[in-house]
Amino acid sequence: MARLGEFDLIERLFAPLAEGFPGALNLKDDAALVPISTGCRLVVTTDALVAGVHFRTDDPPDLVARKALRVNLSDLAAMGAKPLGLLVAACFPKDVDESWLTRFAKGLAQDKAEFGVPIIGGDTVSTPGPFTLAVTALGEVEEGRALKRSAAQAGDVIMVSGTIGDGALGLDALEGKLANLFEDERKWLADRYLLPRPRLELGQALAASRKAHAGMDISDGLLADLAHICRASGLSGIVRVQDIPLSSPARTALKDDPKRIERILAGGDDYELLITAPASSVAPLQEIAARFRLGLTVIGHMAEGAGVQALDASGAPMSLPFKGWRHF
Amino acid sequence: MARLGEFDLIERLFAPLAEGFPGALNLKDDAALVPISTGCRLVVTTDALVAGVHFRTDDPPDLVARKALRVNLSDLAAMGAKPLGLLVAACFPKDVDESWLTRFAKGLAQDKAEFGVPIIGGDTVSTPGPFTLAVTALGEVEEGRALKRSAAQAGDVIMVSGTIGDGALGLDALEGKLANLFEDERKWLADRYLLPRPRLELGQALAASRKAHAGMDISDGLLADLAHICRASGLSGIVRVQDIPLSSPARTALKDDPKRIERILAGGDDYELLITAPASSVAPLQEIAARFRLGLTVIGHMAEGAGVQALDASGAPMSLPFKGWRHF
Repeated sequence: MARLGEFDLIERLFAPLAEGFPGALNLKDDAALVPISTGCRLVVTTDALVAGVHFRTDDPPDLVARKALRVNLSDLAAMGAKPLGLLVAACFPKDVDESWLTRFAKGLAQDKAEFGVPIIGGDTVSTPGPFTLAVTALGEVEEGRALKRSAAQAGDVIMVSGTIGDGALGLDALEGKLANLFEDERKWLADRYLLPRPRLELGQALAASRKAHAGMDISDGLLADLAHICRASGLSGIVRVQDIPLSSPARTALKDDPKRIERILAGGDDYELLITAPASSVAPLQEIAARFRLGLTVIGHMAEGAGVQALDASGAPMSLPFKGWRHF
Repeated sequence: MARLGEFDLIERLFAPLAEGFPGALNLKDDAALVPISTGCRLVVTTDALVAGVHFRTDDPPDLVARKALRVNLSDLAAMGAKPLGLLVAACFPKDVDESWLTRFAKGLAQDKAEFGVPIIGGDTVSTPGPFTLAVTALGEVEEGRALKRSAAQAGDVIMVSGTIGDGALGLDALEGKLANLFEDERKWLADRYLLPRPRLELGQALAASRKAHAGMDISDGLLADLAHICRASGLSGIVRVQDIPLSSPARTALKDDPKRIERILAGGDDYELLITAPASSVAPLQEIAARFRLGLTVIGHMAEGAGVQALDASGAPMSLPFKGWRHF
């Protein structure tokens, strides 16, 4: 890319993304300055995404940008944090063209507007490898209120927001694997894969309510992520598979091929919230979720022991490969 | 890498790096929780590094890790911030072996110990490209005390810590370009390239003193970085080249080939501090630097206008290519 130097690039495409946030210093300094509210903890998370590994190389650049931001905002949502700002470290292939970069920056700008979260810093470098992106999200949460993986208690119910499996089935749809579905259904699922909805308002309201115990977002797959809560809390988790909330296109896909239950349970890319809470909290937590027009569905419970069990409609344990998304 | 899954890897190699920092939640949650001191601003910066671009592919993995951390700590030093924690997002090639990873993690552990800064989060993924690393550094600085690029005033003197040019000449030494130097000199310069010394204590003391105006660290090259201060402050900078502090090996290299002045002025990788301050601050600021056994040398001054001028011993402007390090 001969025409744009790094600094021109940042100035033209990225500096507007910091507008409205004085501490970003117009992206011209070594670092950004971020005020944290009194009585709050900073919440910070980082995710790396590689073209061809975490997204398809021909995914539209604006959607790649937006998904990268949203995946990180979802990690803030999981803890009940209010987002403050994002940092984007981007490694562009040397032959990237200006139009690709412009569309990428447009995606960042769209989600800055949609979520009201500025891009307050970052880095742009060139790479001989595939386009690679590391996003860092900063948020804040009142001291003692963050939802953690380790806070589940035996007897807690397990709940999930929204519907499960749409992201993984959306990837299948994009890869031409759901030929029997209507095009509208395939498009709806693909959109769920390409553009996750971080449950920020729900996460903040759940944390503020003090009625939930453990919490995380579902990225690796429902069962793999529940296994994280089990390990961190020293408990086991039992899921009744028929209680897992499915979208109408996901139900159709499952009817078409019952083996797709594995994609739904283990495919990942859901970015819904997975929480545990005492049974007495179910109704008030569902009322909170309804404020954001979201379902919050009981799918099982936590117990003494270790590991995750999935039970079929008859209550018998299912044998499933549910390693979730492993990067190696 | 068949033998280690992502979670085993994190647990075995990276979890010990978070020890002593409760908010890292043993690296088992979606995000880390960081307390910020009352009256302080969070300072945050991120840098991406790609093998073959920002370091040599055969650099020892422990030194790659340490340099990546130090480059980011240097950005905190530039603002006068006290470091709180680091996040490391690492993209490993699929064929990376356990011994490489172990040495990489050992480097992180060494610098965690040396600087007392824990690794409080991160991400590990695989890439079909070269090893790629994004480090995010978090620090804090008292409100209103951060050193910024935009705070220079006309008439300020320009000062640098330590000696300039050692990093770039160190890279030359590693590439066999300084054959006329003694091996000890080459090794000393190479060490300056491989293992920068972030001037954390000096930066914090300068910010606390309120006697400096603008500040940044020198990573792109002395003249290119001074140009950043000039642009951000709406001023010009005049440097007297013969006043730039050089190490004894750098002086030898320069005597050997006077053209090396370009490497010294524009090579980058110095990670010394570049500040501007009123002339009345020179003596007290030098006293502060002496506490940390560092020189703080006046090399020029800020003036009305724009751009950077380098003057030779006779006071005549030198014509130099000093674009600094450009990534595209």
